[in-house]
Amino acid sequence: MDNKEISQAVIGRLPRYFRFLGELKDEGVERISSQELSDIMNVTASQIRQDFNNFGGFGQQGYGYNVAYLYEEIGRILGLDKTHKLIIIGAGNLGQALANYTNFDRRGFLFKGIFDCDPSLYGKKIRSMEIRPMEELEDFVKENEIDMAVLTIPKASAAQVARRLSHTGIRGIWNFAHVDLDVPDGIQVENVHLSDSLMKLAYNINRSENQMLPGFESQLMDEK
Amino acid sequence: MDNKEISQAVIGRLPRYFRFLGELKDEGVERISSQELSDIMNVTASQIRQDFNNFGGFGQQGYGYNVAYLYEEIGRILGLDKTHKLIIIGAGNLGQALANYTNFDRRGFLFKGIFDCDPSLYGKKIRSMEIRPMEELEDFVKENEIDMAVLTIPKASAAQVARRLSHTGIRGIWNFAHVDLDVPDGIQVENVHLSDSLMKLAYNINRSENQMLPGFESQLMDEK
Repeated sequence: MDNKEISQAVIGRLPRYFRFLGELKDEGVERISSQELSDIMNVTASQIRQDFNNFGGFGQQGYGYNVAYLYEEIGRILGLDKTHKLIIIGAGNLGQALANYTNFDRRGFLFKGIFDCDPSLYGKKIRSMEIRPMEELEDFVKENEIDMAVLTIPKASAAQVARRLSHTGIRGIWNFAHVDLDVPDGIQVENVHLSDSLMKLAYNINRSENQMLPGFESQLMDEK
Repeated sequence: MDNKEISQAVIGRLPRYFRFLGELKDEGVERISSQELSDIMNVTASQIRQDFNNFGGFGQQGYGYNVAYLYEEIGRILGLDKTHKLIIIGAGNLGQALANYTNFDRRGFLFKGIFDCDPSLYGKKIRSMEIRPMEELEDFVKENEIDMAVLTIPKASAAQVARRLSHTGIRGIWNFAHVDLDVPDGIQVENVHLSDSLMKLAYNINRSENQMLPGFESQLMDEK
């Protein structure tokens, strides 16, 4: 990680702040203190203040934060004041699920095309997009100024597709393939490793059932 | 967070170790040093040693780690030596995508049922599972000793469904609904907030393009 930048941990929390502030805004809440925000978000108030201080603090805490202002500022920091043009590579169940998820549009994430390597899918429409052959990838990205690609393809082909994408001028890859991608510096990758997430849940369930390795258990004792 | 426990940050890294070790094992690698593992995983060797020390260290670093042993131990810590029985609630695109993803089976995550509130879907089969009405939820969970539920339903109904689940004896919820769930202590929740992940990608793209707020920019300068 480049420690000149805001830590990815802080950045990872911004969307959650954005989500909660959006709900408060919808409920007509005008101001909120870091303590009140702490209570509903289940993080400490000092954590919230620390996170916000990375971006200048967002106003006088004595009076609480202005919800609409904070919502808008965090949205702008997240780049939600801009629109992004996306393609989906992999028209399987997951690719189609994402293509059909309209909430992304409202946040300025516009799906422009969907690609697959299965000829039997070519021309089939998902929302207004027809499934295109991989041969058209490079031209489509350039002609439509696509800046993000969503990879919903098997692990085996992900690396090769990522290499192809890295020559198209794409800026970001939202990777659902169960592999870590090796891409040039100019390209950002955000992974959604579903199996990893499910394993973490399994761990927490087993942990809560106290079904642990002896060495592991004693280690926990040491920490107490 | 309960600081008597291993931090969720460490736990969140275990599945990735497990994935890389599985690949090394498949490649026939027998031993690996923390430095070699560091190189392929792109984390520091000291991070790896620190993480592993939470679980007793996994053997003599001088000789490197035994890959097969480490793979098996981390798998056991993650609870992958046990099987888990899951239901999916929400038979939309995402629910069906997860139901069709066979890799979960191989890790011992067995999908036993899928539920929806849309009568037009009842009886439709996804793999060997037929889509069931929500009325059958409680009985099905008890009769089939389900321990995990996957929520692939809209935000609006997620809280109410989570409340229903909390009375069924379920141990974990894998939540894809774009809302944080409030459940009793005995139930573990792992969230997959796709929009949050996409926003984080947008942030990193915009950050890399240096399109930032002045206050944010100066803040970064201060940190340099």
